[in-house]
Formats: sequence, structure tokens, C-alpha cells
Amino acid sequence: MRFTVQKEDLYNGLSAVIKATALRGIQPVLSNVLIETINEDKIKLCATDLDISIEVKINAIIEKQGSITLPAKKLYEIIAKLPNKPVIFTLNTENNLTAIKCENSKFDLIGISASEFPSIKYPDSDESISIDVNTLLSAVKKTVFSAATYDTNNVLSGVYFNISGEKLEMAATDGNRLSRVIENIKNTENKEYSIVIPSKTLVEFSRIISGSDEKTVLITVKNGQISFKLENKFITSRLLEGNYPKYQQLIPSNYQIVVKSDRENLIAALDRTATMVNERTSIVKLLFTDNKLSLSADTPDLGDSEDEIEVEYKGEDLKIAFNYRYILDALKAMDSEKIRIELGGALSSALFKPESDEDFLNLIMPVQVK
Amino acid sequence: MRFTVQKEDLYNGLSAVIKATALRGIQPVLSNVLIETINEDKIKLCATDLDISIEVKINAIIEKQGSITLPAKKLYEIIAKLPNKPVIFTLNTENNLTAIKCENSKFDLIGISASEFPSIKYPDSDESISIDVNTLLSAVKKTVFSAATYDTNNVLSGVYFNISGEKLEMAATDGNRLSRVIENIKNTENKEYSIVIPSKTLVEFSRIISGSDEKTVLITVKNGQISFKLENKFITSRLLEGNYPKYQQLIPSNYQIVVKSDRENLIAALDRTATMVNERTSIVKLLFTDNKLSLSADTPDLGDSEDEIEVEYKGEDLKIAFNYRYILDALKAMDSEKIRIELGGALSSALFKPESDEDFLNLIMPVQVK
Repeated sequence: MRFTVQKEDLYNGLSAVIKATALRGIQPVLSNVLIETINEDKIKLCATDLDISIEVKINAIIEKQGSITLPAKKLYEIIAKLPNKPVIFTLNTENNLTAIKCENSKFDLIGISASEFPSIKYPDSDESISIDVNTLLSAVKKTVFSAATYDTNNVLSGVYFNISGEKLEMAATDGNRLSRVIENIKNTENKEYSIVIPSKTLVEFSRIISGSDEKTVLITVKNGQISFKLENKFITSRLLEGNYPKYQQLIPSNYQIVVKSDRENLIAALDRTATMVNERTSIVKLLFTDNKLSLSADTPDLGDSEDEIEVEYKGEDLKIAFNYRYILDALKAMDSEKIRIELGGALSSALFKPESDEDFLNLIMPVQVK
Repeated sequence: MRFTVQKEDLYNGLSAVIKATALRGIQPVLSNVLIETINEDKIKLCATDLDISIEVKINAIIEKQGSITLPAKKLYEIIAKLPNKPVIFTLNTENNLTAIKCENSKFDLIGISASEFPSIKYPDSDESISIDVNTLLSAVKKTVFSAATYDTNNVLSGVYFNISGEKLEMAATDGNRLSRVIENIKNTENKEYSIVIPSKTLVEFSRIISGSDEKTVLITVKNGQISFKLENKFITSRLLEGNYPKYQQLIPSNYQIVVKSDRENLIAALDRTATMVNERTSIVKLLFTDNKLSLSADTPDLGDSEDEIEVEYKGEDLKIAFNYRYILDALKAMDSEKIRIELGGALSSALFKPESDEDFLNLIMPVQVK
């Protein structure tokens, strides 16, 4: 194997794939990146932790075809420090030593044979759907934070993804809160999907796509796998198995108490109040009175905090307490100037929505306090 | 105690003192900041870990004199989140609860009585010397990195500070490298000092002073203490006891081999080569040949690196190896475009200096390699 690439192309390619490497696994080859020549003018970089795999193709001048795996972190560190000039890779197939040259710098990296790299299962199918990238990114941003973080095999650690008709519905819940968004999409062939995607996969997809100017992504689902195909990038991931909870029936539609608030004011007040929150519980108490919201928190032996903002509210005084992090996460995923809080009482879950958008909602369970 | 301060003043004051608090000590009051009213228009903030103490005075409108200590980290966190408006402190002396109000926000922090705060010993003396701030900052920057880090009671963990005639000489060594700088100062009263200052004290002094526009600092030394007096800031620290090594006799003056190099090129080449350094030893090998410096490093099971830069050198080939971090630290403390390396052979310590400045030098011991 012998090829030349531009430093910047290689650096960007490695940035995209490196998060898919396994850090300290039982299989050392999983912390390596696979480098493979393709045709005459491209190389493929690929990394996987067996759950997710990311592939990137970059332009190269190929002199000799071949493939090798190299330690991803070390390679990334080396390439980062090179000047923005052509970089020449030469593999010695006898000992897997790969020479990397750039101007006056030369590195020899000991690789592991490409034959030891796991072969990636692709959901090979023409059953694909093309989705607008910004639509998908927006839906991910509005849901992924509510997924459970405790067990990556649990169905709650993923994001529910449903396509039916011209609608994409995504939802995530950890049992204490639920985020749900509905986006309009084109679905001319009337495809239907109802799957659960690991949240890590969606986070990596967002990371890789953000800043690029690609407009659409081709999604293919088959045999428990999903793939996202972009122009020169390709992400494949397992799906999560198990039945996703029927969250639709939990979303209340008949709440009578509606509060309107400025979103940034509420974020700032929550943030200030939370300085005195008990770190074990993260509870902030809210008290709604005539056009006023008072927030308070306290920690034994440390002290307490109170804050107050103007809101639109008419009605009897209402006291309710939440884990403030859930509210902050939801508010930060919105971009509207004003928000709506819909309440059913002190012990009922509350709805947090952008002011005039019924398609994005956050259902948050209150905490009972004395 | 009751007073009003501007948020920004209080925030800057807390930023200056907070590093002097003890993190998790046996004395909880040491993680607090002492707040004390002074006269009619100032408050004093003070923090100490018993080794170093930092005091800052800020403007305030005092309504009622008094003092209290409050948890420094929590107070800093609260003040950071307040809008840039007046902040009112009110102490309830019966329970040490301090109310902090700013616009619609209110916090109650449980304090510890000021009487439990250790009284700071000041080196009370009129035996002081006034030094140009930039001169002292420059001398600190050029030496402090060479001090030993392993034991804060060892004399090598400090920086030697000597004033004699119109010269300030500072030096630091950890046994493997030595940095020494001589600066010109005014010393009309012919003061003489020969002390060892803890490097943490000098680092904190640099942190607090940088960005301010103060021109001179008044230094007082007495009874094993040193103080640095600025307009509204005051740092007091213990000195280190013990005899500082007679490093002057270690500095060679008769080295015949002189290499000249571009400083930034050498930093970049060292940095690239070091990607493949054995992390246990940090050894980079240097080979000087006719007008060329080759650098190399290797780690078993990972690979190796080589780099090459042009230098001014005539003579026989010379191989020498160093802990590359020592060279990088020294080069980064310089600001000249070119540097001089003076060598006595593969096993003699080497001198790294700015090209035309004999007053700043770094003596680095080589490492023997097979």
C-alpha cells in the first residue's frame, strides 16, 4: 500500500471516524482505524466499536493498493501536528510497519493487519428513505437528551424513530421525562419505520454532519441495523431491541392551567436558583402566583436561594417541584422566545413547549416535597 | 454587617483570592473567604491555606460594619450568575446567615464566624523594596517551570530570589535542569535579599497581577514571610527554609560547541517527534551534523519518529538525548526568534539561551541512551 493524501483531508476524516473506536477493549484492533485504498483516487477510513461504525472516503493519489489498521489516537495526534502539506503513507506488508512522511517529518507506526479488522454488516437493501439533514438534526437535538444513560442495551437508552405518512416522529424518555417531536418529511414511496436508535449513534451522526453542507441523508434499515449515507461518509449502527413504551397515551391533552414565560429569563432564574440546590436531589421548587413565578432551592448546612420572574399566569397559587436539570435541558432544546408550561396540578406531570409549536413537547414528572 | 458592592468588583475580587483557599482541609474555615468591612467605603476579601494568603480591597457602600466568612466556591458560583448590578450583603450575627440580594435574586449562605479565621502574620517592617512589576513577572516566567513539583516543603520546590546591588537574580532547579535569570532593578537603598519563595506563591502573584495596569510591587521580607503589596491587593506567603544549592558553580562558561537555531522551528520539530516518545522516559535523541539537527524518538510496540531542521552548526557529529519536556519548557519561556545551544559533549549538561541574552539560561542534563 502506498498513497499520498492532503494533511487537512486526512485530519478531517480522522476527526469523523475516531469517536467510533473502542477505547480499551479486549480486541486491540478496535482501537485502530482501518485504512484501505479504493479504486485509483480514494482511501477509506473506518472505525468501529462493534455497535457503531463510521466510514469516511477521502481523495488520495494511490500508487499501490492495500490496507492496514493503525492506532487511531496516535495517528490522529501525529497528523494534527503536521504542516498542511501532502502526507505519504507506505506500508511494509512483511511487518505491518507503516511509514508516514510529510516534508522533513517521518513516523513509523506499527499496525495490525486489516484482516483482523471486523467486517462491518451493512443493512444491504434498496428499502431506503432520503431525509432532509436539517430536519433530522433538529429532531435529534429535541429528543436525545431525554434518553436514559444508565444502560446502553436498554431500549430507553435509545430514541424512538417512527416514519408514517409524511411525518417523522421521534421520542426519548428515561422514565422521569419524555421529549417528543414531530417533523414533516417527504415520503413519496410511503415507507414505514418504527425503530429505536441508540442515542450514541444519533449524537455521532449530529457531530459528523454539523458544519458540513450536505442537504439529505439516505437512511436504510434492515436486520436490526441502520445506516446513514452521506456523500463521503457512512455510519452504520445496530438498533435497540425491545418494545418502546407507548408514551403517546401518557401525554395529557386536557390541561387547563397554562403559563407563558420568556424562555431565557426562565433559564437564567433556574440557573441562579440551582446554585443552592441539594446536589443529591437537584430539586427546585416553583410557586406560580398572579403573573409571577417564584423559584427556590435549599441545601442543609449550606443555605438557600430564591428568585422571581414575571410570567403570564392567572389563577390560584400553585406549588410544584422538579429536578431542575430536566427543565433546563428542555428549555435549551427550544429556540422560541416564549414558552408554554401546561399544568394539571402539583402532582401531575407538566408539559413544556415552545409558545406556538404543538409538535415539540417535553413531559416532566414533578417531585413530591414536604 | 451590611454593605452594597458592584457585582463586577466583587467577582473580580473573588477571582483573585479564591486560589488561596484550602480545598478540603481539616479546618473548614480555610475553604471560606473572609469578608470584612473597612472604614466607610471598602470591604476586604481574604483567603488563605496557611501557606499563602491573598487579600483584596474593593469599593463598597457600608451601612453597618462587621465581618463573616462564607464558602468561597459557592459564593463565587453565585456571584458569577448575577446580573451586573448592585449586590447587597446583610449578616444576621445571631446565626451567621448572610443574605445576598441582587435584583430579584436572593441567597442565604451559612457562614462561619470571622473569629475562627486564622489571623495572617504580616512581615511588618519598613525594610521594603519596590520592584517593577514587568521585571518580576518576566523573571518568574523564566524560572518557575524548573522548580521541583514533588514536595512543597523542599527548598527545590521554590524559586531562589536574590537581590544584590542593582541586580535581581532568580533561579529554579529540580535537579535535572536549572533556569536562571538576571534582571536589572533600581536599588537605591542597597537592599540585599537571598531567599527561596514557594513557586505556588509566584504563580499566584503572576495570575493576580496579569491584566492589571499596576507598575510596581512593594516587597517586604521578614521572619520567614514575604509580602507583595499592590494597590488594592496584598499577598503574604511563608518562605522556604534550607540552603539553596550553589548552582552558580554548575553553570559552564567554557563550552566550545555552539548551535544556533530558529526557536519556533525547534519547538515544532520537538513537538512532532515527541508524539512517538516513550511516555515513561520522554527521551528525544538529537543528532547534530553539518548545519542540520535530526531528532528521533521511539516506543516499543508503537513505532518511531524522525524529524529534521536546519541549524547553524559546524563540527563533528554529536549525539545527545534529553527529556524533551525540559527543552520545550525552556524554549517556550523565551521570546527571541533565534536561540543558542551550547554543548560540552554527549554526557555534559547543555545550555539553552536566547540568541543574544546571556542573562537568561537553561542548563539541562542529558540522558544516557544506548
